[in-house]
Amino acid sequence: MRTVYVNGEYLPEDQARVSIFDRGFLMADGVYEVTSVLDGKLIDFDGHAVRLERSLGELEMASPVTREELLEIHRELVRLNDVNEGMIYLQITRGAPSDRDFVFPDAETTPSTIVLFTQNKPGLADNPAARKGMRVISIEDMRWGRRDIKTVQLLYPSMGKMMAKKAGADDAWMVQDGFVTEGTSNNAYIVKGNKIITRALSNDILHGITRAAVLRCAAEAQMEVEERNFSIDEAQEADEAFITSASTFVMPVVEIDGTKLGDGTPGSVATRLREIYLDESRKAAI
Amino acid sequence: MRTVYVNGEYLPEDQARVSIFDRGFLMADGVYEVTSVLDGKLIDFDGHAVRLERSLGELEMASPVTREELLEIHRELVRLNDVNEGMIYLQITRGAPSDRDFVFPDAETTPSTIVLFTQNKPGLADNPAARKGMRVISIEDMRWGRRDIKTVQLLYPSMGKMMAKKAGADDAWMVQDGFVTEGTSNNAYIVKGNKIITRALSNDILHGITRAAVLRCAAEAQMEVEERNFSIDEAQEADEAFITSASTFVMPVVEIDGTKLGDGTPGSVATRLREIYLDESRKAAI
Repeated sequence: MRTVYVNGEYLPEDQARVSIFDRGFLMADGVYEVTSVLDGKLIDFDGHAVRLERSLGELEMASPVTREELLEIHRELVRLNDVNEGMIYLQITRGAPSDRDFVFPDAETTPSTIVLFTQNKPGLADNPAARKGMRVISIEDMRWGRRDIKTVQLLYPSMGKMMAKKAGADDAWMVQDGFVTEGTSNNAYIVKGNKIITRALSNDILHGITRAAVLRCAAEAQMEVEERNFSIDEAQEADEAFITSASTFVMPVVEIDGTKLGDGTPGSVATRLREIYLDESRKAAI
Repeated sequence: MRTVYVNGEYLPEDQARVSIFDRGFLMADGVYEVTSVLDGKLIDFDGHAVRLERSLGELEMASPVTREELLEIHRELVRLNDVNEGMIYLQITRGAPSDRDFVFPDAETTPSTIVLFTQNKPGLADNPAARKGMRVISIEDMRWGRRDIKTVQLLYPSMGKMMAKKAGADDAWMVQDGFVTEGTSNNAYIVKGNKIITRALSNDILHGITRAAVLRCAAEAQMEVEERNFSIDEAQEADEAFITSASTFVMPVVEIDGTKLGDGTPGSVATRLREIYLDESRKAAI
């Protein structure tokens, strides 16, 4: 049984509970981060901590911990749960006031709720899916307008994952006004020649920590990066495609809405970027 | 201390908790209803029960209770908490699987979570705010695309209420593509002459139970109802305006973005509709 962290306590997972009045439960008034663990060390912890602080700031939500305390909790959970490869999930909500109200509670009397738990995933880096590639479908992007804030409003991405599953695919890319925004829990890329194309940052997409790191890796490897919108039609005609996220790193996409990209196997750019990213991340892990 | 209902048990509110793995907490994967109580009886229980079943159906979520059981729980909570005037809040989520996953858990092994609690509000019907009227501001509607499903993704409505509060107003009307969708937790109406104008039903707005009842009352009182889009400009030039919701019934709006409507006091149509609605509701309460 996992040991998880809830509001200052390390608890067995079956005793980890929050009030029914928690604004995370009643109003999706919470933000989260997922940090990967490789070789028992944290991947891009600082990137996730900075984005967490930004999400909290955008929602005027107080953090119940300092960045140093957060690092300590992450490391203690890795230790207690003996995580070699896997993820650490972190969620902060605006706490549990004495009653339900749309108005934000006073932060002085209602401390934020903080929850962390680990997910052990042996073989996360050497994922066979990376050698096979993913099949995606396209769906309309029906999420709210502030996707740059990493909130727990994940119902539509979850529905998207189910639409993909029912269609026999692995994931869905969301489309708004004719252009791909991102995957249900990852950023989306296509490759034409030596050029990597991905949507520019805005409130329309999550500012992926892995996205930033992978684009740095691409630049260092002399690959050209173009940040602009692309459509499903353009993606289907691309040489290759891939996604990035904290838990999948770089994952090739080999089929979009039933159309195979190239010969239907993972492309060389995605494969090379995955290797570079994993190498660099392991080196920088803390 | 309130007695609340959680998954089959009546508990003191400070012992009412859910797992941190509950999909309501982690992913906003839940729906809710709020039913008003007047004279210790339930207002439009059937309307709320039917909408709840529709919300669950749209999300392929199982109900853990029958409609008859739901009625019994509502009545028991009214009795246990001695509610004469107030509300009963109900939430159902897709339950707490053993780990976080975007894919829906198997409904056989992961039962839905059900939570209900009361809010005692003496004076709910004879609310002084109804004699004064509300001031609203307009904000962009940034919510997701399926507002017809009553999900707990209420972060933006909550932010909207805070924007109104900071602007010295009582609530916000949300605007999409130049037209008012609805208030943060209510449907929006304007009145021109004897004509009531309100946005038609679609996925853009909640299908208000009180909206349906009030439009029936209006028709019975020989008032003309036009279901169509209206802008903030048109609203500011209207004779009067109002909102409807399960907890505010019919509430006059006297100011929009700083512009007073008419003489800045509640209009006769809204005031009369509130009386008719309250009379009819008390008669039909169960």
